[in-house]
Amino acid sequence: MKMSELSERSGVPVATVKFYIREGMLPRGEAVSATRSEYGEDHLARLRVIAALTDVRGLPLARVRDILALIDAPAGDPIEILGRAVGALPPYVAGDRDDYPLARAAIAELGLTYDPDFTAVAQLDEALRALEAAGLDATPPVLRRYGDAMRRVAGEELAPMAGMRQDEAVTYAVLGTALYEPVMLALRRLAHHHLLVDSTTDR
Amino acid sequence: MKMSELSERSGVPVATVKFYIREGMLPRGEAVSATRSEYGEDHLARLRVIAALTDVRGLPLARVRDILALIDAPAGDPIEILGRAVGALPPYVAGDRDDYPLARAAIAELGLTYDPDFTAVAQLDEALRALEAAGLDATPPVLRRYGDAMRRVAGEELAPMAGMRQDEAVTYAVLGTALYEPVMLALRRLAHHHLLVDSTTDR
Repeated sequence: MKMSELSERSGVPVATVKFYIREGMLPRGEAVSATRSEYGEDHLARLRVIAALTDVRGLPLARVRDILALIDAPAGDPIEILGRAVGALPPYVAGDRDDYPLARAAIAELGLTYDPDFTAVAQLDEALRALEAAGLDATPPVLRRYGDAMRRVAGEELAPMAGMRQDEAVTYAVLGTALYEPVMLALRRLAHHHLLVDSTTDR
Repeated sequence: MKMSELSERSGVPVATVKFYIREGMLPRGEAVSATRSEYGEDHLARLRVIAALTDVRGLPLARVRDILALIDAPAGDPIEILGRAVGALPPYVAGDRDDYPLARAAIAELGLTYDPDFTAVAQLDEALRALEAAGLDATPPVLRRYGDAMRRVAGEELAPMAGMRQDEAVTYAVLGTALYEPVMLALRRLAHHHLLVDSTTDR
């Protein structure tokens, strides 16, 4: 298809498509004449991924580029790839501490294996400090509520990876980390609404 | 305590404390002389909540103001208060559609009661469109994975509200919606890490 059709089908303006090509985020089309290139379904799929990460997740362009780079070079240790994917996602923490006492205590309580350099440790520590600041409960039963739910969810999320080629597994892991989060949060909010409506109707 | 001590204990610079007072986000201190006001533990607690919402959650100031207003005027219908709290939290969706076909189908699949004007419906729809764009699975079993986990979590989250005064319940609901989310996401990422390390070690 022509650039104009690619733009129309993806909903991404032509100028933005050209920008992504210049930035190396989208491959060039195949030159079919001196003035025209041809684009394929791969280009369309890539544009939709970029749009999902920028528009829906609201990620800064530099972080989207990091995530695309992980998908494009899917070699390497899966744990390191996960670490880099999580590092490209908000919340962006300073990560200049070397302790994270609240996160360490919580992780120990939940019996998780962890690496102190994994960004999610710093993210958890900040999140727990915010709870403490706001006077919200972060006692072991509350931590287990979230920890157990997430461990179960994570187990189900990882299961399909067993049958995937490595490049598919990396794409799934990287995009899945970014794109299932908003689904989960929206469903939590909807569940609150549902339960509140129910309890109010019962009265 | 003096303004200087309030600043030191909260970690919020004096100029920022003064800005919050001017903006009505923090009450004035009690004037003890022409040039000095006295601040209490309430001021410190409020500053910590503002810091948690701005720094840790990264919310824009206008949204923090919306959330504080909900906490300060805790009268009204709990469902409406939840709706306004969720509206003040990201992802900020345009909300200019009146359908949300993907969200409606998912909500029906999960058997949730919903109100199409509740912002989380638009948020879910956008999140599901992003999954579709990225070619990620959003079939009923996957929706149930997240929906069931969130319904269970939400039930446990709402339980303590039964014993609270109305103003406490509103504060808990509003801040809890905002501040438990990052904890849950960090724990999901840590659970992935834990499970990947485990599966790699097994090989």
